[in-house]
Amino acid sequence: MAIRILVNGAKGLMGQEAVRAISADPDLLLVGEAGRDDDLTVMISQTKAAVVVDLTVASAAFINASKVIDSGIHLIMGTTGLLLEQIHELQIKCKQQRLGAMIVPNFSIGAVLLMKYAQDASRYLGQNVEIIEMHHAGKKDSPSGTAIKTAQMIASHRCSLPESRDNTETIAHARGADYQGIPIHSVRLPGLVAHEEVIFGAQGETLTLRHDCIHRQAFMPGLLLACKKVVTLSELVYGLEHVL
Amino acid sequence: MAIRILVNGAKGLMGQEAVRAISADPDLLLVGEAGRDDDLTVMISQTKAAVVVDLTVASAAFINASKVIDSGIHLIMGTTGLLLEQIHELQIKCKQQRLGAMIVPNFSIGAVLLMKYAQDASRYLGQNVEIIEMHHAGKKDSPSGTAIKTAQMIASHRCSLPESRDNTETIAHARGADYQGIPIHSVRLPGLVAHEEVIFGAQGETLTLRHDCIHRQAFMPGLLLACKKVVTLSELVYGLEHVL
Amino acid sequence: MAIRILVNGAKGLMGQEAVRAISADPDLLLVGEAGRDDDLTVMISQTKAAVVVDLTVASAAFINASKVIDSGIHLIMGTTGLLLEQIHELQIKCKQQRLGAMIVPNFSIGAVLLMKYAQDASRYLGQNVEIIEMHHAGKKDSPSGTAIKTAQMIASHRCSLPESRDNTETIAHARGADYQGIPIHSVRLPGLVAHEEVIFGAQGETLTLRHDCIHRQAFMPGLLLACKKVVTLSELVYGLEHVL
Amino acid sequence: MAIRILVNGAKGLMGQEAVRAISADPDLLLVGEAGRDDDLTVMISQTKAAVVVDLTVASAAFINASKVIDSGIHLIMGTTGLLLEQIHELQIKCKQQRLGAMIVPNFSIGAVLLMKYAQDASRYLGQNVEIIEMHHAGKKDSPSGTAIKTAQMIASHRCSLPESRDNTETIAHARGADYQGIPIHSVRLPGLVAHEEVIFGAQGETLTLRHDCIHRQAFMPGLLLACKKVVTLSELVYGLEHVL
Repeated sequence: MAIRILVNGAKGLMGQEAVRAISADPDLLLVGEAGRDDDLTVMISQTKAAVVVDLTVASAAFINASKVIDSGIHLIMGTTGLLLEQIHELQIKCKQQRLGAMIVPNFSIGAVLLMKYAQDASRYLGQNVEIIEMHHAGKKDSPSGTAIKTAQMIASHRCSLPESRDNTETIAHARGADYQGIPIHSVRLPGLVAHEEVIFGAQGETLTLRHDCIHRQAFMPGLLLACKKVVTLSELVYGLEHVL
Repeated sequence: MAIRILVNGAKGLMGQEAVRAISADPDLLLVGEAGRDDDLTVMISQTKAAVVVDLTVASAAFINASKVIDSGIHLIMGTTGLLLEQIHELQIKCKQQRLGAMIVPNFSIGAVLLMKYAQDASRYLGQNVEIIEMHHAGKKDSPSGTAIKTAQMIASHRCSLPESRDNTETIAHARGADYQGIPIHSVRLPGLVAHEEVIFGAQGETLTLRHDCIHRQAFMPGLLLACKKVVTLSELVYGLEHVL
Repeated sequence: MAIRILVNGAKGLMGQEAVRAISADPDLLLVGEAGRDDDLTVMISQTKAAVVVDLTVASAAFINASKVIDSGIHLIMGTTGLLLEQIHELQIKCKQQRLGAMIVPNFSIGAVLLMKYAQDASRYLGQNVEIIEMHHAGKKDSPSGTAIKTAQMIASHRCSLPESRDNTETIAHARGADYQGIPIHSVRLPGLVAHEEVIFGAQGETLTLRHDCIHRQAFMPGLLLACKKVVTLSELVYGLEHVL
Repeated sequence: MAIRILVNGAKGLMGQEAVRAISADPDLLLVGEAGRDDDLTVMISQTKAAVVVDLTVASAAFINASKVIDSGIHLIMGTTGLLLEQIHELQIKCKQQRLGAMIVPNFSIGAVLLMKYAQDASRYLGQNVEIIEMHHAGKKDSPSGTAIKTAQMIASHRCSLPESRDNTETIAHARGADYQGIPIHSVRLPGLVAHEEVIFGAQGETLTLRHDCIHRQAFMPGLLLACKKVVTLSELVYGLEHVL
């Protein structure tokens, strides 16, 4: 029997894409599209949803997440806007109910694999690694959240610390941002969408992991997978990698 | 106490690089450099080597390997020239003696990681993948052995078979070599050394794994690692990945 | 005063993009959108168009082009489907009327610049060059028209012919298509749109020219430029490069 | 008759490469190899050199250049260490004697072509462009001289100024160095040699120019060309592009 899905934030660009993808999947049944003016708790009850996919903006994330989990319904939350203590509180709530839920900062399978391999490669080659992330001209923050998360994963698993090197910048900041010895370089240009490159260097060789995302369709296979897996979980997990 | 290493094929370019690298490693002791005119069995006995690193040409590989293993000495063989039945015969010999040995078609840690990640990614994205390998103009065979091995690893682990597609070549062979539905493209140019790119495609995204090798120094960390690990093994293993 | 533009093929994806772009340009006035069922000659007369932008399929190209030029109206034709003798016939017609017209196989300024630089670089490095073109999985013909045109431009300007090289293909066709000694490799994957890479190799160095097109918006600046320039011409020109 | 060449700085890595390349060229005759302890003026006189190729360190550049030009001998100087006023003084000296001379900051033909195309492309796409330069871990200054020169060439020819954009750096300096609105990003890793990438962005497309130099052999064709061309000049020129 198809899993009953309610999409919150269904009018946004990601929401519309999700509505399309869920509707086309025979294992899933789209039972509702909630927007800003809807009462989420009421809609959950009316639609008899089994899963709420929340694609709203970060500011409403914690309130929405609490409503869904307090209703005893599986949650898939697609934002990065939660604080660690908020995630912790939601985890406790899920544990008490033995309720499956997912917080997914990046639904792209390619991006998740890149981070997984970057973490693994850092065990052998992590002493010398740099990240170049490239996004469309409209992206205002830098580095990207994914680049920072990648750097965190490398830093926590690397074989050895980077050597400190002499460096003279004849134009300031040429060496980019520094995350615990990992330089991160942010490119912003029209004609780009979302791209990340991790370059590991060693004597005589480099290993490059690159992810190019050019359309939000890239997030749909991961989102559909999350919908099918969350109902089999009995706790809150953070990151798509837990169900791959 | 340092491990006693005898290098066979010590006069070749790889052999010279290996002699330099082993000499510089405090955990290893270079006890001999054998060439074409030396009797390998005699030299093993004279030098009291614990490990023979064989970097000779493929045609002599099986004879050399047999001599080393029959002497009860650990073998590290850096060629791709052995047949499956020959490898099998050597494996049996090692097993009988509980003797550690390694056949290592590629000592580069970066290349080995690329293949490992390509195999893993094929479980999620393996339905659509192509390989581009690029080498110096002097390389006569195509595709490269590493590209073929990568394709084999992808083919044996991929999530689903590639869809057959209509394709009209207005100039013949534009779509490259076909290894079980995985296209392989070989570029040969001066200014290149040895480069491999594996591109996985999915809706709206691509994941690219790339290895660039520009100097045979790239093989030394893997070779030194093999020297240290082979003495802890009690069988013959194929591929550096077994000791990473 | 704004230039009066009639778009033929206005319902197609490129046509819709063109309608949007022309409408937003203060120097241009969109006076009509013709489709399959419209009589183009009648519409030209009714709309008093100064320029017809034809974005219909290749099969109708010559008939449409003749209608426009016979009406004494400037033509911009965005297809590659004309034969050399047809182009020649249109050129004669334009010459007789001293009428500006353009046939533009690729409206992207980036693609046109790539071809221009590839042609120039071939004067110094053209002895060793390969082309990799990458397109979405739905593209049925290979190599792409742009790749073939790039190879033609290189072949006609290169400093010296490529050396013939020994080559053994252990899997057939690994070296790709051959255009007068220039290998062309065609990659087809979902997640790609339209990408071309030209790699020149020389001792110790490579020069790579790459164009990535991820949306048909990329064609609009070139199309708008053509609309403004065609009215200043007094003959038929082939290629956007003539008005850059 | 072969042109008589004296190499100054013949013991350095570049000097040795130059000695090899000049010796192998039938149009050139190597007549001397000067080092730190030699009197350059005396050697010029003794060897009857027609051209001095100076590959010494920057600190001695002006003194050496003056000696050669005052001797009335053609100079090819391969350093970037001269001040503008020094270059100007040398230009006057050459003009007075109608003597051909060249100052060549980069002998690589690929690098020179990249800069030429970057300058040309900036006329169409120069509003949005970034530079990524990547070098071996031992390079201490950043950005590279070639990257700065490329940025200068773009800045002086670009179609329009970059728009100022909102940008929030959550880790400082992620957006790299700023040369008149052109971001420059410097990557330093083992396994790299000298690489430069210029990325132009526009709606829906990017144009990327990339140069990879992996061995100082890359400088030899440009150096040999300079040796043959400098004897035909009657003034001092700056940059290999003047003789391409």
